[in-house]
Amino acid sequence: MVYSPALLTDLYELTMAEGYWKEGLREAESCFYMHFRKNPFEGGYAIACGLDHLAKLVDEFTFTDDDIDYLGSLRVPSGGPLFNREFLEHLRGYELHLDIDAPPEGTVVFPQEPIVRVTGPLVDCQLIEPALLNAVNFETLVATKAARICGVTKGSVAEFGLRRAQGPDGGLRASRAAFIGGCASTSNVLCGKVFGIPVTGTHAHSWVMSFDTELEAFRAFALAMPENTILLVDTYDVVKGVENAIIVGKEMEERGDRLIGIRIDSGDLAWESKKAREMLDEAGLDYVKVFATNDLDEFTIDSLERQGARIDSWGVGTKLAVAYDQPALGGVYKMSAVRQTPDSQWEPKMKLSAQIFKRTLPGILDIRRYVDADGMYCGDMIFDELQGVGSETIVDPFDPVHRKKLTGRTHKTLLEPLARGGKSVLGEMDCIEIQKRTREEISKLDPSYTRFLNPGSYPVGLEAGLFETREALIREHGPEGKANA
Amino acid sequence: MVYSPALLTDLYELTMAEGYWKEGLREAESCFYMHFRKNPFEGGYAIACGLDHLAKLVDEFTFTDDDIDYLGSLRVPSGGPLFNREFLEHLRGYELHLDIDAPPEGTVVFPQEPIVRVTGPLVDCQLIEPALLNAVNFETLVATKAARICGVTKGSVAEFGLRRAQGPDGGLRASRAAFIGGCASTSNVLCGKVFGIPVTGTHAHSWVMSFDTELEAFRAFALAMPENTILLVDTYDVVKGVENAIIVGKEMEERGDRLIGIRIDSGDLAWESKKAREMLDEAGLDYVKVFATNDLDEFTIDSLERQGARIDSWGVGTKLAVAYDQPALGGVYKMSAVRQTPDSQWEPKMKLSAQIFKRTLPGILDIRRYVDADGMYCGDMIFDELQGVGSETIVDPFDPVHRKKLTGRTHKTLLEPLARGGKSVLGEMDCIEIQKRTREEISKLDPSYTRFLNPGSYPVGLEAGLFETREALIREHGPEGKANA
Repeated sequence: MVYSPALLTDLYELTMAEGYWKEGLREAESCFYMHFRKNPFEGGYAIACGLDHLAKLVDEFTFTDDDIDYLGSLRVPSGGPLFNREFLEHLRGYELHLDIDAPPEGTVVFPQEPIVRVTGPLVDCQLIEPALLNAVNFETLVATKAARICGVTKGSVAEFGLRRAQGPDGGLRASRAAFIGGCASTSNVLCGKVFGIPVTGTHAHSWVMSFDTELEAFRAFALAMPENTILLVDTYDVVKGVENAIIVGKEMEERGDRLIGIRIDSGDLAWESKKAREMLDEAGLDYVKVFATNDLDEFTIDSLERQGARIDSWGVGTKLAVAYDQPALGGVYKMSAVRQTPDSQWEPKMKLSAQIFKRTLPGILDIRRYVDADGMYCGDMIFDELQGVGSETIVDPFDPVHRKKLTGRTHKTLLEPLARGGKSVLGEMDCIEIQKRTREEISKLDPSYTRFLNPGSYPVGLEAGLFETREALIREHGPEGKANA
Repeated sequence: MVYSPALLTDLYELTMAEGYWKEGLREAESCFYMHFRKNPFEGGYAIACGLDHLAKLVDEFTFTDDDIDYLGSLRVPSGGPLFNREFLEHLRGYELHLDIDAPPEGTVVFPQEPIVRVTGPLVDCQLIEPALLNAVNFETLVATKAARICGVTKGSVAEFGLRRAQGPDGGLRASRAAFIGGCASTSNVLCGKVFGIPVTGTHAHSWVMSFDTELEAFRAFALAMPENTILLVDTYDVVKGVENAIIVGKEMEERGDRLIGIRIDSGDLAWESKKAREMLDEAGLDYVKVFATNDLDEFTIDSLERQGARIDSWGVGTKLAVAYDQPALGGVYKMSAVRQTPDSQWEPKMKLSAQIFKRTLPGILDIRRYVDADGMYCGDMIFDELQGVGSETIVDPFDPVHRKKLTGRTHKTLLEPLARGGKSVLGEMDCIEIQKRTREEISKLDPSYTRFLNPGSYPVGLEAGLFETREALIREHGPEGKANA
């Protein structure tokens, strides 16, 4: 379906926008940042993703005449128009004027860090919030899930979650993010076309059921697809299915063709794959690969690998495409600074909240990542560009006793321009390059951060000056402070 | 983004389609049905949804020149083209010729039942599979989740999950399905525009943070939105926030306006809402409503209601929009009959599999729902149209000892035409009407089927003749049978 990303927003962003517009805050500028509070899947890291999508949403953002007509039709409970007519005219054809900064897709990121920073007119910062969170939350989640899955096996992983994905572009975006996280291919043909990702597939049980016998079905498939034959062997019985596949594999050899593989989709994949491997090897078909599918995720693949399953390629669908064990990343988007006009001074802002973990960070935030002599990542400092970096000791924002000194290491700054003046500056991004970056990034993490069970907590803290500013704001805005007076 | 639903498919559907086309099965027709094996959320029922979406996908299905070019560019591992050139020409401009039947959206459905039935050319039946499952799995899941959430409270429920939803139309479709399941409104403006669903909202913490004090922020909002003021009171401290909201509420009264409500988004919602209610009532603002948000679902709302929380309206986001505790409905699409030409006899088909619960049903399936004298649903019979209904006793397909006699009750047939000859016959569907149907449907279920903890198992079984056909097929296709010989 075709839609304007401008309406891909929550109603309150538009009512707040009208409020700012009416209340003399038309000129006001703000800085917001997106962060998440906990790594997904009880893991030790996340893979930033969804940023190219965000860039496209920003580029395409505008209110069409049709959108304005719709907004003009909305009513308050008493029956009057919800929106001011003059404000709607202001929105007609409106384009964003935001500067956006983010790490490149595929970068490893951690809780509390500003993984997207948005600066510009207050109204624009609000309007983009839901679309930004929608893109980055979901795609970061799936890329991370894929990295976990691909990390437990030397075999290749093919993604095929479309049929259980959450909506058509839930599928499309999941397939792209899964590739970035490390999958070798997707079954999703649209994703192949749109993002240039390899597409792969086998056949379904229905193919076998369309013929009188399984053997006939296998023969027909081998003739129809002589260079692309992978036979699904579990429609009736796996051992008989492998026997039939061997018959057809030998027939293919006689014609100068080669059976690529068999696929098992039910039962005990460890026992069945070992049995199939043995049968194939005995028949001289040691080049025929074993593919496995059936509700797999990182934990089942890991367990099957440990049990000596002989599986060359894993097909992973539902558990990956919807990030089954944690289907949403709770990333939030919070104001960190405001100024009344583009020429005035930035004023740092933070939200207190009754819950300590919901408290935010103030300033124009960026991340400095420190790298050890051996190239491994050893700690991240969140700093405020306005204050710069005074000390190289980082302070845990929720436990100030917890500090780490990072002096003497090299470092790099993570945020890079994504959009300037409301237009994307990213250029075309090749998914194969991004996948490569992801792999390199993960290789720079100590294994203690990538293990599944109680992973180590990667050091992330505030630059000391930022920590002090934040403490002062807490005193100012707490129950006894002036903002709440 | 714009795309053709024809490529919204798994690669293997296209390779199988070429296989059928090459193997002289171009004329073959088949019947497939979609069903799920277990109710979502460990519940006792599901709400059919996503069927209007399916109808649109069928209507729009065609291969564009661009799609054909892309498919023509795909290669097998040895470097040759994956698809036959002549086959691709056959696909160019191809439209579906399917008949599709399904219950109306909002109908309660149960495991094993054919909730979508697709009949027509074998190739067409394959090509539509992923898009069909994608639409119906996800939307059925979210409509069911919404019905559960709305069922535990007399308060209204507003959905606002866009920012955590799985992709833009993951959000769009979730919002529609949530409304069908019983939500009063959505925050998603695009959903409001596209589906005519009421949109609602309040304001964010950032509004408060844009002003020097909370009181200033509340005053400004009340002036900007005098007929639509709901104030978020937890940016700094809830009790102080309510005090400030009361000041502004009284000022509004003086101007002849009325504060609609306050919203609490953190902390202990039970204690806070009772405290807020007491403070508002004491101030003479008994008409001001209390809205609550913060990671709510049916269990937290139920628990808060039992603790006497004074909440009039619940905002539910993430947990609903991604169906957090079960983010995918495992609906599958299986062949149940095939015929070599449109004039030949239908041959029933089933898949055996090593796992009993993965075994399917044969025939041209439909559902007959029996209704008690008091209008309550009392049992569903899955029958094969080819065999008709011989006996009114239903047999559990996985436990033939388990039978139920349904004679003497009235009944209705559930499947209705959704598409004929590849074109939708549904017409425009009004979401408010569908929501009403959902509510009526749920009222016809005994409470034992709607409770959360160990709900009763609604009686669904096979018509006795269908059961016998299936048993015969199991004998024929089992490890000792001819199909696997």
